[in-house]
Amino acid sequence: MPNPTAAMLVIGDEILSGRTRDSNMNHLATVLSQRGITLAEARFVPDQTEAIVTAVNALRLAYDHVFTSGGIGPTHDDITADAIALAFGVPISHRADAMALLQAHYDRAGVAFNDARQRMARIPDGAALIDNPVSIAPGFSLGNVHVMAGVPRIFEAMLAGVLAGITGGAPLLSQSLRVDRGEGEIAASFKALAEEYPELSMGSYPFQQNGAFGTNLVIRGTDPAMLDAAMIKLQRLFG
Amino acid sequence: MPNPTAAMLVIGDEILSGRTRDSNMNHLATVLSQRGITLAEARFVPDQTEAIVTAVNALRLAYDHVFTSGGIGPTHDDITADAIALAFGVPISHRADAMALLQAHYDRAGVAFNDARQRMARIPDGAALIDNPVSIAPGFSLGNVHVMAGVPRIFEAMLAGVLAGITGGAPLLSQSLRVDRGEGEIAASFKALAEEYPELSMGSYPFQQNGAFGTNLVIRGTDPAMLDAAMIKLQRLFG
Repeated sequence: MPNPTAAMLVIGDEILSGRTRDSNMNHLATVLSQRGITLAEARFVPDQTEAIVTAVNALRLAYDHVFTSGGIGPTHDDITADAIALAFGVPISHRADAMALLQAHYDRAGVAFNDARQRMARIPDGAALIDNPVSIAPGFSLGNVHVMAGVPRIFEAMLAGVLAGITGGAPLLSQSLRVDRGEGEIAASFKALAEEYPELSMGSYPFQQNGAFGTNLVIRGTDPAMLDAAMIKLQRLFG
Repeated sequence: MPNPTAAMLVIGDEILSGRTRDSNMNHLATVLSQRGITLAEARFVPDQTEAIVTAVNALRLAYDHVFTSGGIGPTHDDITADAIALAFGVPISHRADAMALLQAHYDRAGVAFNDARQRMARIPDGAALIDNPVSIAPGFSLGNVHVMAGVPRIFEAMLAGVLAGITGGAPLLSQSLRVDRGEGEIAASFKALAEEYPELSMGSYPFQQNGAFGTNLVIRGTDPAMLDAAMIKLQRLFG
């Protein structure tokens, strides 16, 4: 059985304007590879309802899972929850269990549970809450879409919770060989090796160090024995 | 006149598997903001023809410019040029001027201009070459799609060449204020200020430092006087 597929949707003007570098995609990619879930696509959109709705609806139909980051805080630019409700065509409202979680949190902190903070309890009908062990305000899963915070520490904590409930596949393994030759020199034999192993994915990544060209050759796949066999041949060719 | 819009398409298994962190999107976002071109969307796809074709065709119809990175080297996993030709429905072949550039380069280096290296002269019909001052193998622009290398140093050099020929708009300016309060506390007045200035985009980005919560408030826009006026009000509110 092939591994489940996933897409990521990163939401936020701050990333598309260049002000902030996203780090959540790389974290998600790494964790999903380990869990045997193929990250097949990622999209970055601004804080605009129509852009979010269009992307979510395209991705949730095309892949087994969609992971989103960003836009679920208390300020006016946090529109993700409402956009997801719109994408699914379901109502959204302040949900009692989310309200109770947040009320207790702000009571403990001695801080007013004002309208803005209450916005973070707006959850689309039919969603399951995602636990936020860092700052309480929950994410949610609706269908195959998992809606999480953009702050990396919170995103990572929420993701760990979500993945505990998802069945993965065979982990994507990778091995690499660094060769002190340019890509153009190894391309023909590397291509022949790739054709010998259609179940593996082989990539070459050139680099330049101290003026000399080199290439990292990477083989990825889910079958450890096949990967080992291909690596032995790769080392014989270029090692 | 509104600023021109752009999308980025990052191509490569190595990024979606988590092995490599993309840095080209952040560079493109920063440079486009300065040039008054709005980066409205970014997509990341694997080294698969169908995924590239689908994304390129969606993006080139939706935005004024599309910038791609990755997949134009000499190895079998470099399929971008062929995929772009397919997306536009035009033939692709080894182009004479690109062949001559590369031939001269490899002659100088005393290295064989073999089949793999000749692949880098495959250019779709009707494209204009993009200069590569780093490693010679050119990128190309076809219609509104600018196809560049994935290696950051080469991507950045190619992009500088492309942008020299593109008319931008009013630069996207931004100013920010750091406040030592949580988002929930400033949300209501910040929203009111945002509603007062519909032409500006206002975002709030929470952070935690030494256990205390704070928020960076960012105002973006193209009109410097309006930005200054809004910042004065922001400082009065929270400064």
